[in-house]
Amino acid sequence: MGGPEGLFEPVFISDAMAPITSAANWVRKMVDFECALAGVQGELRIIPIEAAHEISQLSRSFQIDPTFLGVAARITASPVIALVAGLGDRLSESARPWIHYGATSQDVLDTATILVVKEALELIFYDLEKVGTALAELTERYRHTPMVARTLLQHALPTTFGLKAANWLGGLTSAGAVLESTYSEDLAIQFGGAAGTLAALGELGSGVGIRLAKVLGLEFPSMPWQSQRIRVAKLGSALSITVGSLAKIAVDIALASQAEVSEVCEVQEFGGGGSSALPQKVNPVGPVVVNACFRRVQGLLPILVGCIVAENERGAGEWPAEWETLRDLLNLTGTSVERSLHTLSNLKVNEDRMRENLDISRGNVMSERVLTSLSEFMGRAEAHQLVRRATQRSRENRTSLYEELLHEEKFCDSFTVDQAQELFDPLTYLGSAQVFIDNALADWLKARTRWRKIFG
Amino acid sequence: MGGPEGLFEPVFISDAMAPITSAANWVRKMVDFECALAGVQGELRIIPIEAAHEISQLSRSFQIDPTFLGVAARITASPVIALVAGLGDRLSESARPWIHYGATSQDVLDTATILVVKEALELIFYDLEKVGTALAELTERYRHTPMVARTLLQHALPTTFGLKAANWLGGLTSAGAVLESTYSEDLAIQFGGAAGTLAALGELGSGVGIRLAKVLGLEFPSMPWQSQRIRVAKLGSALSITVGSLAKIAVDIALASQAEVSEVCEVQEFGGGGSSALPQKVNPVGPVVVNACFRRVQGLLPILVGCIVAENERGAGEWPAEWETLRDLLNLTGTSVERSLHTLSNLKVNEDRMRENLDISRGNVMSERVLTSLSEFMGRAEAHQLVRRATQRSRENRTSLYEELLHEEKFCDSFTVDQAQELFDPLTYLGSAQVFIDNALADWLKARTRWRKIFG
Amino acid sequence: MGGPEGLFEPVFISDAMAPITSAANWVRKMVDFECALAGVQGELRIIPIEAAHEISQLSRSFQIDPTFLGVAARITASPVIALVAGLGDRLSESARPWIHYGATSQDVLDTATILVVKEALELIFYDLEKVGTALAELTERYRHTPMVARTLLQHALPTTFGLKAANWLGGLTSAGAVLESTYSEDLAIQFGGAAGTLAALGELGSGVGIRLAKVLGLEFPSMPWQSQRIRVAKLGSALSITVGSLAKIAVDIALASQAEVSEVCEVQEFGGGGSSALPQKVNPVGPVVVNACFRRVQGLLPILVGCIVAENERGAGEWPAEWETLRDLLNLTGTSVERSLHTLSNLKVNEDRMRENLDISRGNVMSERVLTSLSEFMGRAEAHQLVRRATQRSRENRTSLYEELLHEEKFCDSFTVDQAQELFDPLTYLGSAQVFIDNALADWLKARTRWRKIFG
Amino acid sequence: MGGPEGLFEPVFISDAMAPITSAANWVRKMVDFECALAGVQGELRIIPIEAAHEISQLSRSFQIDPTFLGVAARITASPVIALVAGLGDRLSESARPWIHYGATSQDVLDTATILVVKEALELIFYDLEKVGTALAELTERYRHTPMVARTLLQHALPTTFGLKAANWLGGLTSAGAVLESTYSEDLAIQFGGAAGTLAALGELGSGVGIRLAKVLGLEFPSMPWQSQRIRVAKLGSALSITVGSLAKIAVDIALASQAEVSEVCEVQEFGGGGSSALPQKVNPVGPVVVNACFRRVQGLLPILVGCIVAENERGAGEWPAEWETLRDLLNLTGTSVERSLHTLSNLKVNEDRMRENLDISRGNVMSERVLTSLSEFMGRAEAHQLVRRATQRSRENRTSLYEELLHEEKFCDSFTVDQAQELFDPLTYLGSAQVFIDNALADWLKARTRWRKIFG
Repeated sequence: MGGPEGLFEPVFISDAMAPITSAANWVRKMVDFECALAGVQGELRIIPIEAAHEISQLSRSFQIDPTFLGVAARITASPVIALVAGLGDRLSESARPWIHYGATSQDVLDTATILVVKEALELIFYDLEKVGTALAELTERYRHTPMVARTLLQHALPTTFGLKAANWLGGLTSAGAVLESTYSEDLAIQFGGAAGTLAALGELGSGVGIRLAKVLGLEFPSMPWQSQRIRVAKLGSALSITVGSLAKIAVDIALASQAEVSEVCEVQEFGGGGSSALPQKVNPVGPVVVNACFRRVQGLLPILVGCIVAENERGAGEWPAEWETLRDLLNLTGTSVERSLHTLSNLKVNEDRMRENLDISRGNVMSERVLTSLSEFMGRAEAHQLVRRATQRSRENRTSLYEELLHEEKFCDSFTVDQAQELFDPLTYLGSAQVFIDNALADWLKARTRWRKIFG
Repeated sequence: MGGPEGLFEPVFISDAMAPITSAANWVRKMVDFECALAGVQGELRIIPIEAAHEISQLSRSFQIDPTFLGVAARITASPVIALVAGLGDRLSESARPWIHYGATSQDVLDTATILVVKEALELIFYDLEKVGTALAELTERYRHTPMVARTLLQHALPTTFGLKAANWLGGLTSAGAVLESTYSEDLAIQFGGAAGTLAALGELGSGVGIRLAKVLGLEFPSMPWQSQRIRVAKLGSALSITVGSLAKIAVDIALASQAEVSEVCEVQEFGGGGSSALPQKVNPVGPVVVNACFRRVQGLLPILVGCIVAENERGAGEWPAEWETLRDLLNLTGTSVERSLHTLSNLKVNEDRMRENLDISRGNVMSERVLTSLSEFMGRAEAHQLVRRATQRSRENRTSLYEELLHEEKFCDSFTVDQAQELFDPLTYLGSAQVFIDNALADWLKARTRWRKIFG
Repeated sequence: MGGPEGLFEPVFISDAMAPITSAANWVRKMVDFECALAGVQGELRIIPIEAAHEISQLSRSFQIDPTFLGVAARITASPVIALVAGLGDRLSESARPWIHYGATSQDVLDTATILVVKEALELIFYDLEKVGTALAELTERYRHTPMVARTLLQHALPTTFGLKAANWLGGLTSAGAVLESTYSEDLAIQFGGAAGTLAALGELGSGVGIRLAKVLGLEFPSMPWQSQRIRVAKLGSALSITVGSLAKIAVDIALASQAEVSEVCEVQEFGGGGSSALPQKVNPVGPVVVNACFRRVQGLLPILVGCIVAENERGAGEWPAEWETLRDLLNLTGTSVERSLHTLSNLKVNEDRMRENLDISRGNVMSERVLTSLSEFMGRAEAHQLVRRATQRSRENRTSLYEELLHEEKFCDSFTVDQAQELFDPLTYLGSAQVFIDNALADWLKARTRWRKIFG
Repeated sequence: MGGPEGLFEPVFISDAMAPITSAANWVRKMVDFECALAGVQGELRIIPIEAAHEISQLSRSFQIDPTFLGVAARITASPVIALVAGLGDRLSESARPWIHYGATSQDVLDTATILVVKEALELIFYDLEKVGTALAELTERYRHTPMVARTLLQHALPTTFGLKAANWLGGLTSAGAVLESTYSEDLAIQFGGAAGTLAALGELGSGVGIRLAKVLGLEFPSMPWQSQRIRVAKLGSALSITVGSLAKIAVDIALASQAEVSEVCEVQEFGGGGSSALPQKVNPVGPVVVNACFRRVQGLLPILVGCIVAENERGAGEWPAEWETLRDLLNLTGTSVERSLHTLSNLKVNEDRMRENLDISRGNVMSERVLTSLSEFMGRAEAHQLVRRATQRSRENRTSLYEELLHEEKFCDSFTVDQAQELFDPLTYLGSAQVFIDNALADWLKARTRWRKIFG
């Protein structure tokens, strides 16, 4: 199957995701549902075995234009009715009554959606593991590379690039755990019949459901979820959080790629990141796309959460609102993971520049250490004022903090020259950075092991 | 051009809107921009007249697969670069340097978007006027048809169905005015060159822009809006409010279509509103779809509003986040208007049932009138308690409010029998309903006159 | 401590939640953090034991006006700086340097927030268990009470009120599981110092953190989460889903309380649900409030999710955006649970009316059964058309479906009179309703057992 | 009246806005409504003139604890009922029946809300005009100050700081126009009685409404808007767009304040922008707060838009969802304007640094000009490749673009040395910057003139 079509779609739908979230695949899953249902009902002698057999065969050969179903859906707000009719047309008269037996539209489409979601999540985890591995490598490789930590976009203190990457990795591990739990808990068939009772199947309904779930490789839920949409909202939330964890990385990289900062750069093939007007441009295209994905995801999530209120036994509007919203979320997540992987795999790290930037505050980035050390000799408030005064003069005079502190009698009284200079060495002021790095790596390894077990 | 493609799209993209918001049309508008730009630059002798002529010709013949541009956009986050290259390929060597002269990607795509928006809004207003006309007819026809007004889903007081329709009409008039003002004020070209200065055109930039806007039938804005996205947010807001005004109607109709209420019904062709399982079903499909559209629209709006913060001279992610979001909003609005028109044009109104429902509270719906009248004879608080007591007994005993009031001495002392019975006639308790109906109709006529002037 | 103050607040903040989410409690938790930190640092001989002792004492006696901190926060975007200054003022000169030692604003406020969240979740679960119990009782009591199932606001098939309640219960059990997992996994201290390295504590930082977490009764996270906000987004998502599961119940109850439906009613004390104008009104106030809460929650959630992109080591704006948003979410959730409990505990169920409503479609609600049975004698498509035709005539002629079917030769040929009449008995067409009810009850019992273990 | 109270509130509610959006003011406006209503009804002899007089007096003396009303609202979902009772308690027996005569809760609270909104908008415009003036000054003063334009966070082309400020100003002018139109069009009383018919006033209802609107200084709408909430959604949208236009400025300033960029700085009083841990910190507190406000606003807007679907004659949940949402939006907007004013009034602009940053790309920022000039000598595509090649080498070798171009034969053939050097002068490559600046200033002056007329 081909890639995404359209002017905008290819930016937001990856080639790997396109066949999964395509209309064709969604239809195929709907057909799979109908065939599996007939198969199970045949086995259980609920419908004639020959009819079951004939229906099951359709899953191999049946072709129908999704657009035909989509257009038909306009008059019923469901694409399933035309599908059932279309399937019926291929059947002998004796088999025809037994297709879709005891089921309702929502059984078919919701279960198909879950089958699509399953494939999509598997693809997402396949790439997510690679993103994790790339982050773990950055964490290890740069665990001792000093750089400046920035809070509120201002220089704060020294950190290491490895810790920054570990923080990204931690975010991914956490987000992945949320997504993993929705994969493990929420991928269940929908099977309730027209009103959630499976009335048409008499007492055999839940027995059919249990077999059906097994055949389709999904869970059988405690009850139909046609108007109990928490699993869809959970899924939306897990996808959003996943994209968020990647967008956080994207934003950090875009900021670190600014000309004046230049600490990292997404290396691109010739032409990549280019502009129609500016030949010098090497735009951080990956981060830009991931950022765009996240902006969209934030808007899509509340749509799904809002659909939880689907009233009575099926809501008058919530269900169709979910369809494209969830599909878009899957696509945007797939794209975010793929683009993040590309960016991280092609990230050029400029350690020299990190070191230079750490120094541009002329020692002010070490002021906390000065403050803490000074606090032992005077009140913390007094020390805070002394150091703040010195940093202010340092900013105004473009002098180093050290020079300005030398004008403060109390500072000179408190430290020897050696002690004073030691205060300004960033490499000895990194606290628990290595512990946190180790923790992040350990968490990641545990997650990866789990994922490999789950996703093979 | 054909209708929308896909399994879900046809429900949310009308056949009339599909060719407007299609990738093909968007590309055509981009080509139109490039051709118009060259034309203007030729006229002003900024580029060779022959090159201008050659480029202008492309608008007739140029064909390019939108997907090709979309795929190319993956590496630059803009589909324009490949378009310019593609256009260049069709040109002679001497004309080639002069295509896209002085422009940037965003000039092309943003202006194309505005051209698409213009066509889409014209279609929307075309249908919106018909919706307004249908509502005005309902208002007139049923201006004296009594029914119960409901607040918090409970019976409140008598009203008329005409006033209900007038209220819908008033919403549409208000929403239309918002949309109309965005049509009149915000449809401007984007033309700023790579950084919003039109640098490559020296001093001639704004002159080119003024001509270019004229040729394209758009406004020339005071300055480029590449990172000043308020017009897109305004548009999003106007579309959302429009869909909201229609969804309000949809929700009211869906509620009035409940079996137990049965005051209105969307008459459907055979099969319309059907279910895959339930042959008796006549679902309110139009309202269901409009409701679904509005649920989606509410999520899309904040995406566009959020993009206002596009930083510096072009944001790193906001722009691509707008593309499909705005397109989806246009489609969802178009569908909402079209479906609402269908529903209102096929609305069967059951006046008898409205009258029956007005009576099912056994007079309790007139309790305010009783209270008001009684208040003149005692304190309002006391009257409130007396009437509340009677309504409570009436509910418990399933008796009429009138009967219960007869057990209240103070009530009997205050009114003659005739007076007391008059209190329970809903037709004489409609206050200013007719005034409000007249106002709504007058507002609508003014709006329609304006629209006809604007949209021809 | 008192209840909520203000004109609007009391509707959205319960008396039980008010003291938890109050400014005073938030400040108390911040003080608790500072005291516990000093205590641990004293134990570990990082700061002088006397200073630690003196600081620890503050937690008992320290009083500060939250508004004073709030006003001070205007110039630093953090209420912590003034708090530390205020605490310092109460200390002797020798203890003063050791307050807030090695910590940063975010450590204090984020940890305080988690302590508040912990108390809030405990209250929420306390009430949620009661809601679950009330739902389980409704499920049991009405498990065999027939009523009509409604899809797209239209009559669909018979169900039982017990199954409807089981569906509500299932939603609550699922939502509760999400909330429970955030309670178990995400309640960790924030402790990273100014840039997430705990630099000021040298190598002792994570040791301090582990002890500190223990003292405060929270987890120690793998790394500081000052710019890794997934746990806040997860919490927001869990709260939103919880409110959603309650709003679904609220919407169903409000619809079932309509005068024309009258299947349930929220019994209210005298005056409850009243109107300033209409003495007869008994508005479904509880459902109205829960619905309002959910509308607000849907808007608040994406704010928290959006804050995941907090850039670098602390974002420039995301953090303060979380403060009131999360507080409001806690309050809205608390209110939703409390109001739902009240509504369910005072729900009057009208079984007669349920039965009457089931019959108002004159047998049409059984059309699926007729269709299914007929399908065995002809093609399903043909059967569908036959039944649909009959239902349409039944609607037009206001006759029973049974009567109309008697005009269809093929129907009469297929069934004896007894068989035909049996088709219209709703009580024998409830499928797996009892199985689903049993499942929902079993899930609930498991959840309740877990909750009792977790929350004592 | 005092400032905002609480731990978080003062950051998000300004001292000037606090008394306007306070519960006390809201209650006062409700009382004003009741008094004005009685006054008008007295004049028109609908109620006894003495009662009218007595009621009108209440507006001077009546004091009631808003919290008392809020708590009472829990049982009716409206704070008006207790207010009316409270007012009644102060009246003589003969006047008591005539308070709130013919009105409903929503009339009182909605009209009070509009009165609060009016005051809030007036304050917002008062500050907004000052923000505009500050921006106009920046635009004028720095209209020729060269700096680098940045797109996708990368250096693009030269611009001037004046144009950047003009762009900010243009955003503010546009946003202000949206807000202005909501001020002019939407501030109408709500007056419909219990169901939007003014039934209790017989034929006199709309006459009372017209007078009442006049007395309260508001418009009289064509019909009651109790379930037609577009004006609230429009207001929300206008406020959001206004905050967005300010947040765009905030983000730009925060980015330009980065240590590595240092082009602007929010000058702060001693202590402003400080950190609890880092004495050197001068955080861009104003921009941080405005950014936080915008993040919240984006979530609040869709709540209000969603409430458009309030069903029937009053929705079951939409109305209370609006209350605090709108109040928060007003507060967040007020804060955004006030903080932006402070930031812009204290903005230190570093022209030297702007010039230095313009040069750090070693001429690459001029590559478009080189490309455009070269294109006249070869195909644009070829020129693009040549220049892109040179920029790439320049990046790798850290050489100037000029040097690298000298290695390109075709470049050397095309230009003399003087011509070639001229290509790299940013001051002669600013296109229409001055035109756009003039336009922005002219638009602003027009807006300011309008505002002064409207707001005195």
